[in-house]
Formats: sequence, structure tokens, C-alpha cells
Amino acid sequence: MSKLSQDPIHQDQLWMQRAIELARLGQYSTKPNPNVGCVIIKEGQLVGEGFHPQAGQPHAEVFAMRQAADQAKGATAYVTLEPCAHYGRTPPCAKSLVEAGLAKVIVACPDPNPLVAGKGVQILKDAGIEVEVGICEQQAEQLNLGFLKAMATGMPYVRLKIASSLDGRTAMASGESKWITGPEARQDVQHWRAISGVVITGIETVLADDCQLNVRQLNGIEDITRIVQPKRLVLDRQGRLSLNAKILQQPDTVMVMGPFRQELADLGVLQLPVQPLKDLLQTLSTQHQIYDVLVEAGATLSTAFLQQQLVDEMISYVAPTFLGQTARAMFSAEFSRMAEQLRFKLMEVTQLGDDVRLRLIPSQETV
Amino acid sequence: MSKLSQDPIHQDQLWMQRAIELARLGQYSTKPNPNVGCVIIKEGQLVGEGFHPQAGQPHAEVFAMRQAADQAKGATAYVTLEPCAHYGRTPPCAKSLVEAGLAKVIVACPDPNPLVAGKGVQILKDAGIEVEVGICEQQAEQLNLGFLKAMATGMPYVRLKIASSLDGRTAMASGESKWITGPEARQDVQHWRAISGVVITGIETVLADDCQLNVRQLNGIEDITRIVQPKRLVLDRQGRLSLNAKILQQPDTVMVMGPFRQELADLGVLQLPVQPLKDLLQTLSTQHQIYDVLVEAGATLSTAFLQQQLVDEMISYVAPTFLGQTARAMFSAEFSRMAEQLRFKLMEVTQLGDDVRLRLIPSQETV
Repeated sequence: MSKLSQDPIHQDQLWMQRAIELARLGQYSTKPNPNVGCVIIKEGQLVGEGFHPQAGQPHAEVFAMRQAADQAKGATAYVTLEPCAHYGRTPPCAKSLVEAGLAKVIVACPDPNPLVAGKGVQILKDAGIEVEVGICEQQAEQLNLGFLKAMATGMPYVRLKIASSLDGRTAMASGESKWITGPEARQDVQHWRAISGVVITGIETVLADDCQLNVRQLNGIEDITRIVQPKRLVLDRQGRLSLNAKILQQPDTVMVMGPFRQELADLGVLQLPVQPLKDLLQTLSTQHQIYDVLVEAGATLSTAFLQQQLVDEMISYVAPTFLGQTARAMFSAEFSRMAEQLRFKLMEVTQLGDDVRLRLIPSQETV
Repeated sequence: MSKLSQDPIHQDQLWMQRAIELARLGQYSTKPNPNVGCVIIKEGQLVGEGFHPQAGQPHAEVFAMRQAADQAKGATAYVTLEPCAHYGRTPPCAKSLVEAGLAKVIVACPDPNPLVAGKGVQILKDAGIEVEVGICEQQAEQLNLGFLKAMATGMPYVRLKIASSLDGRTAMASGESKWITGPEARQDVQHWRAISGVVITGIETVLADDCQLNVRQLNGIEDITRIVQPKRLVLDRQGRLSLNAKILQQPDTVMVMGPFRQELADLGVLQLPVQPLKDLLQTLSTQHQIYDVLVEAGATLSTAFLQQQLVDEMISYVAPTFLGQTARAMFSAEFSRMAEQLRFKLMEVTQLGDDVRLRLIPSQETV
């Protein structure tokens, strides 16, 4: 062990990072449940670890305690999310940790639901267990941006994906657009779909591309059937979706917002009444347990989400090419003064093959 | 010394990298001369080093030999560019290296001028000195892209700088554009100006911004007067440049391509007859010893340079903001099919504050 890692605070961070790595193993399969990881440490040694793999399966703490068995007594548990305090499909983890005789529990993120927050911690404290909350909290939050936001606010976390040329175009005037970005960027999109509860698109995109918007291949995942596919939601205010559309080949994961159509109901498609985008997002979160939304749409719908301030994060793929000034603009609003511009905070920039991916947070500041 | 660095090839690379670092110390002041660095190593110890600081001053090898003095005998010299073989303001360095008794000379880049290439090496070999060429050649080439290209082809190395919003806009329709990019990106532009022999712009940009296009501040350089300022070349086919333009405050570094005007001649401005862009570039290189050209212009002129395939490298600053679809496009060509697109190879991506800098090489491939 290096000198650094003998520092107790640094040790805590290292073990919590291990728990975060474990949590990430469930990133494509736990929805709508959060990703959670847990490690149990006794006298500096790892004696148990686990993660939540899927809704209906045991929580991370349970796997870790099973592995630790008797060694859990007097040990320290690191958990990425506050242990649950309620009876669901499993007994509350906070109680199980008490029964296993843990001496200390270190938590990264508190329970985000203001109605239940702190109850898990309270159960532990009442039983005389030492509890610390907040170690590596920001990193752990990244695991569950949707879940955390939805529990706290009732609204999902909305990612807007846009792929454009360097001169800000998404297609030629004719609609021709294959391919602006390269294979690495297109593969990367699969990840964001796979962590999402739903992919939202507009009917124009479905009519133009006959897209399916499902997850076909993920780096590091051999068996794609093991992941939970996102729903695909088509905004179709005039009921134009063709029954022959490829997206309807798996109708049980399709949602349509539009006028009710019996033929879609017969296919098993879930239909939502036409409503404002903000209400739609709230409906998805509160009624359908969809906490992570990915918008993959044309400029009109993307611009609407942005201008209504409904985007939490924009994932922007920029391809090093010029398509010219008659090609379609990626952003369709019209501003006349710099003060009207829509600015973002740049969180991260990554090269993907010949393309660049920017992760951007819309700025609320006025310029 | 680590095991790695005792490997002789790796040792050569380490010393050559030191020579490259030294060469870079002259990057803002040697023009039109190349940047060259030299280290002299005897029995694994550095005994002399130097770089070319400015035209008219001694070459890198001379400084290194002065420092090494008698220890140069039997030593190895690492030079980033083939030692010169001609009498200029100083005697040929190849001869001086022979006289100093060097045993071995390692060269990164051969002399690029096909008429003289190899003469420096030949002088050394004829004197019985062991010579190796090509160690760290690609890194060393980066020091002198303009000089190397001009010596080999008679054309300068052309960098095109563009600053745009994420949606590919350079200004509002009104022309308002202050500021799209942030202070870090704007500071970075100063570096590219300072390594250039000339900054080319169009009369429209001068009329709109009353810009000076000079170097005002450089990271790591305290005294800006020690650098050689680039010339500023205004393309003014109709002779519209006002005598009150700020750029004329230092008329001796201004060039104008346009109809001859006596009042500009009286100010000491160098005037060039109207000619095609390609001819202009050749004129700059062959008649004015300007080997590095930076184009900082509006969309029309930038697009002309790109479409005439005169750009070696595009330096693209992308600001995380949307200016909207009525704002001015960064690239003004009109393409109707994807096959016409102008693609680039992405060489490097760097975050600068909230902006991103892409270094791009125009691709000659058809898509």
C-alpha cells in the first residue's frame, strides 16, 4: 500500500470508488431502479461486494452481506446510495445491515426523495451504527442522474443528443444525412440509449429515416438481450405513424403521443394523449417510472425542448465537415441579438474517432 | 537513470526532444529563419546547448559549440534541422561542427530544399563524422511547418482560423459578434499570430471590426517587443481601406493587396497588385520570405481559401452556444449532396476555458 492510500479519508474514497464501479455494472439493466454498489471492508480487507443487477433482484447490500457472511460483524460498509428503509420486493437494507452487525456505514448519496430521505440513515444510527454521508457524492450522483432528479422533483433527467457538422448542419436540404458522424460516435449513442428509460423522437424523423432507436450493440456487453431496452416514444400529434414503420416491429416497447388509434392499441402500443412537452415529461416520470429521457429528434423538436428549458444535458457530436449554408440548421430558433443566444457550460470534451463529443449543460445565466 | 532511458535509441529521442524544446524558445522571433535547437552530449552528459534566437544571430549549433568548448571533441551533437552548408551571415554550421571535432551528428529533419538537401550531411560524412538523420523527425517538423513547406514547394503553410458557435455561426445577422469565444480561446489566437509571417484578412473584416490583428500578449513572454510581429495583409480589391483604420497605426507592418494608392505608399505600406489567392501566397513565400500564413477573415474569404484547396490546417474554435438560424454562417458554399461536403481530418482537440479548439487538416479524399 502506498502512503497516500493509508490516509483514512483517501482510503474511504478508494473503497467508495470500487463501490461506484460495481454499481456501474448494472447501468443497462436496473431501470427503473437506481444503480447501486456496495463493498464491505474488515480490517482493511475487502470481505464482500455486490451491485444491484436488475429490478426484482436483491439490492447491492444484500449481495455484499451474503459474501461477507460472518465477517460483516464489526465491518464497514460503503454504499453508493442511502440504504432503503422500506419494504418492497425485499426487506429494507438498513435493517439487514443492522442485523448483520456492521459497525460503520459510509454512504455516497443520501436518498433523494424528500419524503423518505434520511430514514435509512436513521435506522442505522438508532442501532448504534456509525454513519457518514457524502463521500464521493458527486461521482456517485452521476450513476443515477435520472433517478435522483425524479425522486427530488418529479421530473426526469433529459439528455438531448444532436449530431452535426462543424458548420452546424444535420442534413442536406434534401434530407440526405448518412453519415455525418463516424462509427465510433454512432456506437457511443448506443450507450446513452441503453441507460435511458425512453428515447423520444418526432414523427418527422420516423417518416424520414424509418429509424428503430433501439440498442443494437454495446461495448463490453456480449449478450444484448440481457439489457433492459429503452422505450421508444414518437411524438405524432396528427397520427401519421405508419403501421409498417420499422419501429413497430417491437410494439411492446413503443409509446406514441397522439390522437388515440385503435390499430396501435391492438398492437400493444402504449398511447399518451397530446400534451405540452413539460407535462409529457412529468407523466413519464410519475406515471411510467421513466427517469432518464434521451431526445433524438430533428431541429424543430430539439429546439422546442431547449427553448422550453427542458434539457438537463446536451450530448453534441460534432463531425469535422462542412455541409454548406443551404444544408439544414441544427437549431431552428431565430435570434437577432447576441444577448438572446442560448449558451451552454462545457462539461467534457472527448474525441471519438474523427468526431468530437461535447457534454453541455444549458446555462441559465443571461449573457 | 531509469532502465528505459539507458536504451540507446530512447536516449537519442530524449536528447532530441531537449533540442526540440530549445528550438521552440525561438518560435516567436526567428522568422523568416527556421526554429532550430542543438544539444551536445559527451559520455552521457550534456556539455552544450543552444537555439537560434533571431535572424542575424548565430545558429543553434554555434551556441552549443561555444558552451561545449573543448568538450565538443569526440562528442555527439543533436540538431533539429540539417546543419547548413552555405555561407550566409555566419559560416556554414556543418564546417564548424567538423572543426570542433564532433564524432557524431544526429539530425531530426533533413534540409527541405531539394537543391541543397543533403549537402550539410555530406560535409560531415566527408570529414569522417558519423551521421544519423530522422530521429524525432515528425515532432521536429512541427517546429517549422511553414519553412519546410516553402523550401520544398515554394508555397507557404496556410492556417485558417475560424471562431464559431456550436451551430456554425460567426455573428448575428447584424454583424454583432462580441464575444462568441471566451478569453482563453482569444488568448490562444495570439500564439498562432505570433508564429506567423503574415495575418491575412479581408477589407470587410477591417471595415466591420477596425481590427489590428497584431500580437498584444503571449503566455510566457513578458516583453512583447522582443517578438517579431507578423505582417497584416488586407485584401482590398476596390481600395476601400480608410487611412484612419487602426491597422494603419503601424503602417510598416501592413501590406495591402489592391489598386495602387499613393497615400498608402506615403505611409510606408507595402502594396501588392490584385492577383489570385494562390499567386498571392506564392508571392508571399518567394518574394517576401513569408512561410507561415494565418487567415483570419469572414466566411466569404475563408470559404474561398478552402474551396481553392489553399488551406493546410484549419484552427477552429467552437463556443458552446447557439446563435440561431438567421445568424451568419461560418462557411458560405452551397452544396446539395453529401458527396460534395468538405471533410477534415481531426488532428487534435483541446478544451480552452468553455470553448473547444480543433486542429483540422482538409481531407483530399472524396467521400
